[in-house]
Amino acid sequence: MTRPDGRAVDELREVRITRGWLDHAEGSVLVEFGRTRVLCAASLTEGVPRWLKGQGRGWVTAEYAMLPRATNTRSARESIKGKVGGRTHEISRLIGRALRAVVDMKALGENTLQLDCDVLQADGGTRTAAITGAYVALADAISTGRSRGWIPAAVDPLTDSVAAVSVGIVDGTAVLDLPYVEDSTAQTDMNVVMTGSGAFVEVQGTAEGAPFDRTELGTMLDLATTGCARLTEIQRTALAAPLER
Amino acid sequence: MTRPDGRAVDELREVRITRGWLDHAEGSVLVEFGRTRVLCAASLTEGVPRWLKGQGRGWVTAEYAMLPRATNTRSARESIKGKVGGRTHEISRLIGRALRAVVDMKALGENTLQLDCDVLQADGGTRTAAITGAYVALADAISTGRSRGWIPAAVDPLTDSVAAVSVGIVDGTAVLDLPYVEDSTAQTDMNVVMTGSGAFVEVQGTAEGAPFDRTELGTMLDLATTGCARLTEIQRTALAAPLER
Amino acid sequence: MTRPDGRAVDELREVRITRGWLDHAEGSVLVEFGRTRVLCAASLTEGVPRWLKGQGRGWVTAEYAMLPRATNTRSARESIKGKVGGRTHEISRLIGRALRAVVDMKALGENTLQLDCDVLQADGGTRTAAITGAYVALADAISTGRSRGWIPAAVDPLTDSVAAVSVGIVDGTAVLDLPYVEDSTAQTDMNVVMTGSGAFVEVQGTAEGAPFDRTELGTMLDLATTGCARLTEIQRTALAAPLER
Amino acid sequence: MTRPDGRAVDELREVRITRGWLDHAEGSVLVEFGRTRVLCAASLTEGVPRWLKGQGRGWVTAEYAMLPRATNTRSARESIKGKVGGRTHEISRLIGRALRAVVDMKALGENTLQLDCDVLQADGGTRTAAITGAYVALADAISTGRSRGWIPAAVDPLTDSVAAVSVGIVDGTAVLDLPYVEDSTAQTDMNVVMTGSGAFVEVQGTAEGAPFDRTELGTMLDLATTGCARLTEIQRTALAAPLER
Amino acid sequence: MTRPDGRAVDELREVRITRGWLDHAEGSVLVEFGRTRVLCAASLTEGVPRWLKGQGRGWVTAEYAMLPRATNTRSARESIKGKVGGRTHEISRLIGRALRAVVDMKALGENTLQLDCDVLQADGGTRTAAITGAYVALADAISTGRSRGWIPAAVDPLTDSVAAVSVGIVDGTAVLDLPYVEDSTAQTDMNVVMTGSGAFVEVQGTAEGAPFDRTELGTMLDLATTGCARLTEIQRTALAAPLER
Amino acid sequence: MTRPDGRAVDELREVRITRGWLDHAEGSVLVEFGRTRVLCAASLTEGVPRWLKGQGRGWVTAEYAMLPRATNTRSARESIKGKVGGRTHEISRLIGRALRAVVDMKALGENTLQLDCDVLQADGGTRTAAITGAYVALADAISTGRSRGWIPAAVDPLTDSVAAVSVGIVDGTAVLDLPYVEDSTAQTDMNVVMTGSGAFVEVQGTAEGAPFDRTELGTMLDLATTGCARLTEIQRTALAAPLER
Repeated sequence: MTRPDGRAVDELREVRITRGWLDHAEGSVLVEFGRTRVLCAASLTEGVPRWLKGQGRGWVTAEYAMLPRATNTRSARESIKGKVGGRTHEISRLIGRALRAVVDMKALGENTLQLDCDVLQADGGTRTAAITGAYVALADAISTGRSRGWIPAAVDPLTDSVAAVSVGIVDGTAVLDLPYVEDSTAQTDMNVVMTGSGAFVEVQGTAEGAPFDRTELGTMLDLATTGCARLTEIQRTALAAPLER
Repeated sequence: MTRPDGRAVDELREVRITRGWLDHAEGSVLVEFGRTRVLCAASLTEGVPRWLKGQGRGWVTAEYAMLPRATNTRSARESIKGKVGGRTHEISRLIGRALRAVVDMKALGENTLQLDCDVLQADGGTRTAAITGAYVALADAISTGRSRGWIPAAVDPLTDSVAAVSVGIVDGTAVLDLPYVEDSTAQTDMNVVMTGSGAFVEVQGTAEGAPFDRTELGTMLDLATTGCARLTEIQRTALAAPLER
Repeated sequence: MTRPDGRAVDELREVRITRGWLDHAEGSVLVEFGRTRVLCAASLTEGVPRWLKGQGRGWVTAEYAMLPRATNTRSARESIKGKVGGRTHEISRLIGRALRAVVDMKALGENTLQLDCDVLQADGGTRTAAITGAYVALADAISTGRSRGWIPAAVDPLTDSVAAVSVGIVDGTAVLDLPYVEDSTAQTDMNVVMTGSGAFVEVQGTAEGAPFDRTELGTMLDLATTGCARLTEIQRTALAAPLER
Repeated sequence: MTRPDGRAVDELREVRITRGWLDHAEGSVLVEFGRTRVLCAASLTEGVPRWLKGQGRGWVTAEYAMLPRATNTRSARESIKGKVGGRTHEISRLIGRALRAVVDMKALGENTLQLDCDVLQADGGTRTAAITGAYVALADAISTGRSRGWIPAAVDPLTDSVAAVSVGIVDGTAVLDLPYVEDSTAQTDMNVVMTGSGAFVEVQGTAEGAPFDRTELGTMLDLATTGCARLTEIQRTALAAPLER
Repeated sequence: MTRPDGRAVDELREVRITRGWLDHAEGSVLVEFGRTRVLCAASLTEGVPRWLKGQGRGWVTAEYAMLPRATNTRSARESIKGKVGGRTHEISRLIGRALRAVVDMKALGENTLQLDCDVLQADGGTRTAAITGAYVALADAISTGRSRGWIPAAVDPLTDSVAAVSVGIVDGTAVLDLPYVEDSTAQTDMNVVMTGSGAFVEVQGTAEGAPFDRTELGTMLDLATTGCARLTEIQRTALAAPLER
Repeated sequence: MTRPDGRAVDELREVRITRGWLDHAEGSVLVEFGRTRVLCAASLTEGVPRWLKGQGRGWVTAEYAMLPRATNTRSARESIKGKVGGRTHEISRLIGRALRAVVDMKALGENTLQLDCDVLQADGGTRTAAITGAYVALADAISTGRSRGWIPAAVDPLTDSVAAVSVGIVDGTAVLDLPYVEDSTAQTDMNVVMTGSGAFVEVQGTAEGAPFDRTELGTMLDLATTGCARLTEIQRTALAAPLER
């Protein structure tokens, strides 16, 4: 089988992580998975939501959104419609859970990290790119917070790293990191979130056409494991460089 | 390990399916998984949403909601808040996808099946109970539609059955069909939707505490497979009885 | 004249009150007026709305809603529409006023009783069934509150009981407790709320077709008085039994 | 007993009806019940709501609202809050029903009459003033429509006139047409809508404090009958004068 | 050139300012620019919005709205639509800025002046009439506040007066104070807000058809200066009279 | 006087226009005025809004929005708040009017050009950058449309170019193109929109502190004329280059 863009089945698209893309945010990243382009901003603020107050613990939350012309045909703004759609809700919640899995809330202190992931251009895999980029923005915001004394410097609130990738079955073959053209014809679509140390944080597989069996599930999980490991390396490399603003 | 209600790790709670609970709906079921109680109504109407018109295909969609006092402490109504929450959106979408996986839209003709799953009482597993009950309501609505001539009688639009169950890891042990008391302390929480013939429609696993590894994932999938097979039998038995109204 | 269901003009439909239908609520009732079925949950919480704080007085309020397929054709959810309709508002306010008429707010202390009346199936008279059932749920919630020490035990906050019934003029004849088939063709439609001791709390009569005169009004009030007295007995009988959960 | 403004118990406040207060509306009235001042505009447009199309019948509907500073303390705008309150809904529906009771929808043809009743200043009885004024605006809009040929001239769509007044029990005495100072302390509050020929269109009585008995109800209905008869005369006098614009 | 209503190009329509039109508001004005009629109510309340607290400064804000039948064809209520339109927002903000320009917030103390400008009838220039009338209502509310001791009497919070007028280019000629018939065909439309001492607070010019050059801009500003000076006189005369309620 | 960034009073910040920043949009530009960065996407679709249908004319409209972390402190999303704020509305309308001033709607045919201007980073002048960039995106979308035959090629719908710049008075001196640090302390703030041929499309000046006089207005208009002429050149240069995607 040949994939539309000539990649091997277990090959990621070109991934680019540009840190410090914004001047104001405590951490920010422009992440690209091929033509998918997501701007991730991490805002660090003092205090926590009301229901958490006084427990000495922090909070991490996320909001995902798409610009109207990120896609091939323009979609209406949710602000104009006056309500947030189900898909937006679902992805925002997924990103929040993924990031909370690698943060020690005690070490964060009573601070909130708000991640904004805005899709500037969409070509499949926007939620996995968002998670992968948001982790780097989060790491930078935590560094900023610790160096400025907003977060206690003693213990690093980051317990691990986190990355995500999509896998799917297209024309009977399991493939990694699907662009829109593959995603729209996949029989099964799966998003996998893993820690840098190789454990699962989230596994979401959906049969779009025919249901899948245990063997197919296994193959997809293998591909996802490979993909997340590669993304973890890319994140590490990106974070190893000094941050120029 | 002993579970709070004395069940074995691979044992379902008592499941009850009461068909024809409503007089008006084309299909309706009160489904109970232990103390979780969900009213599923299937409404069959002529016509399809605008974007599907003229293709000779039908549509299946679902809405999930919870009564304010289904839970231990009262939660505010989404109608009063003026917006539908992320969790509600997410579960509604899940139920719709699960049911569409076993319906042949061509055979349904240009008709819409709308499933309403309203949780009257919640004790964990409301989404899986909803899917399991909604399938039976759907089957009854399709029978009604075929017998009244609204749906062409030639081909049965149902291609398979579908059921769902939750699994999770509690205190290090994988368990099936978690009530609230287990769900709220589970490290990992997974919802699995399977067809009657044993294939996966949806797999959604989330690490609430520690991430999970491939072995734990395997154990949970085994339990879910057992549980869904048992639910499939219960659905068949329920549907085999004549429907009295 | 013969009524569609063979009842006498001053005869109620079969009324059933099932207490303790929910496990979590402080008081709960499934009330049935024939095929009309309303789930009433009474939630007792500490504290009062802001505008009442510090006055040593409690509050009673109610919300009424209908499940989408309670009726013959499905109606859209108000949560999805993002706004509560006029009819819903009107009935919620009516139920709240009816219940407040028999509660001594001083004796209740700074506690709130929130009544949720959700129509599971509608066949006329949903608001009157809701009031009649909600009173029983309220009484149970107050007992619960007093026995748990949340409400001062010294003085019973209940000063009387309250029940409601519909009356109307159908084909020129005044009739009691109209099901949908009568209600939809009635010239005049009236809802009457009365205390157990026989006084009026609320009288709402509307000419749907021809206006009504003073004599017709009198006949309808006579029927309502009979009906409410009978409902008061049924409430007493229901409350006399021990509550099994 | 002496009323705060020195009126007899069966005496209306000074009622003023100014026709043609607006230049654009097909009918318009500024109605004053003492210091209560409501601007009623009747808009006549071709066509009917979708659910009525093609039946050769017209429609009459109403919207009630209050300016923010109509009352003693400013209340927030419903447009800013983004939702219409229960009280507004309830009164809008009441006005619509009251006016529909005296319009022959067949004679109106497929036209819609939309009544807008905006309270410029509130001092009790705003809904009854609105109904009383709206009838006059409606009559003018129908005249306009018939003289311009929009409404078939053959049959007058008006079958009767309609007026409304409040009655209540204050300090144990039944009184007519309550200003705010009486309304806020009334034990019972009742709004009565009657046709010009003396029949009831709507009776809405509410016990705010102690419930009321059949005798009190009778006395209030007597007062309301007197009040509505007097308002009917005032409407006739107003409509007898030529309309200057 | 002859204007539709026979005015000279630099002539205002008849302007009428009726003070004390409402009984409850601390200041109120019915302002008329020809057939344009705006009710301006100034509400004075203790306290300021949260973001201003504790700074010893007051706040002035405004809301503009139009009754549904102020215009030739009825427009839907923003409360029913559930959102405030862009034009409404824009004008509300303009009125607020205009009034804040002549108020010394320190002298006002921690009090809020809320201006409500409701257009009862629209015939062009509603925003300029609103500003001109709102200033007078504001002045009366400040007098009320100082005489009642709510606002410190020592320093007058009013530093100047403010008025506004529209100018435009119609058929190539610059004209002052455009009614709807001129406004709807103007190539350029400009609203100018000036202080009583002749300085600019706001200049908003928009080319509706052909863009305008510097000379045309100059001519329009000359006309506006003349118009605002005349409005300032009218405001002074109105405020010089004793306020009868 | 020295400006914070060392510019002369009549000097623009560095302006960069990157065409074709998005793959899907018919025209797109990333425009930068110093650190202000706005992504402008022009979407060309067949058809016009309902109120324009059948007139053989096109339509141009715009929506402006800001990402949550475009600013120094994060602001809440309007989609989450469920309503669009007044400032957003105001700027969206301004951009739309500015672009419509240079488009011949007849030549456009029954097509709609929708401009989306999303502020990725804000440092003053976001609305003027948006207009300046949106014009270039619009020009590219029109070229695309004409070359693909969607827009009749015969007549160019663009009648001129349009650009915008801010001017203001800071510490008594008139300056061009204010960054946030100047904007927040300016006494007067003015936005000027001009055509490439030097005429005014929109002039919006607001006294934030002291009102301004005719001389100051003149100086600001001189600066704006210089600035817009320079921006026109930059737009021309950008459009002269071939568009690489």
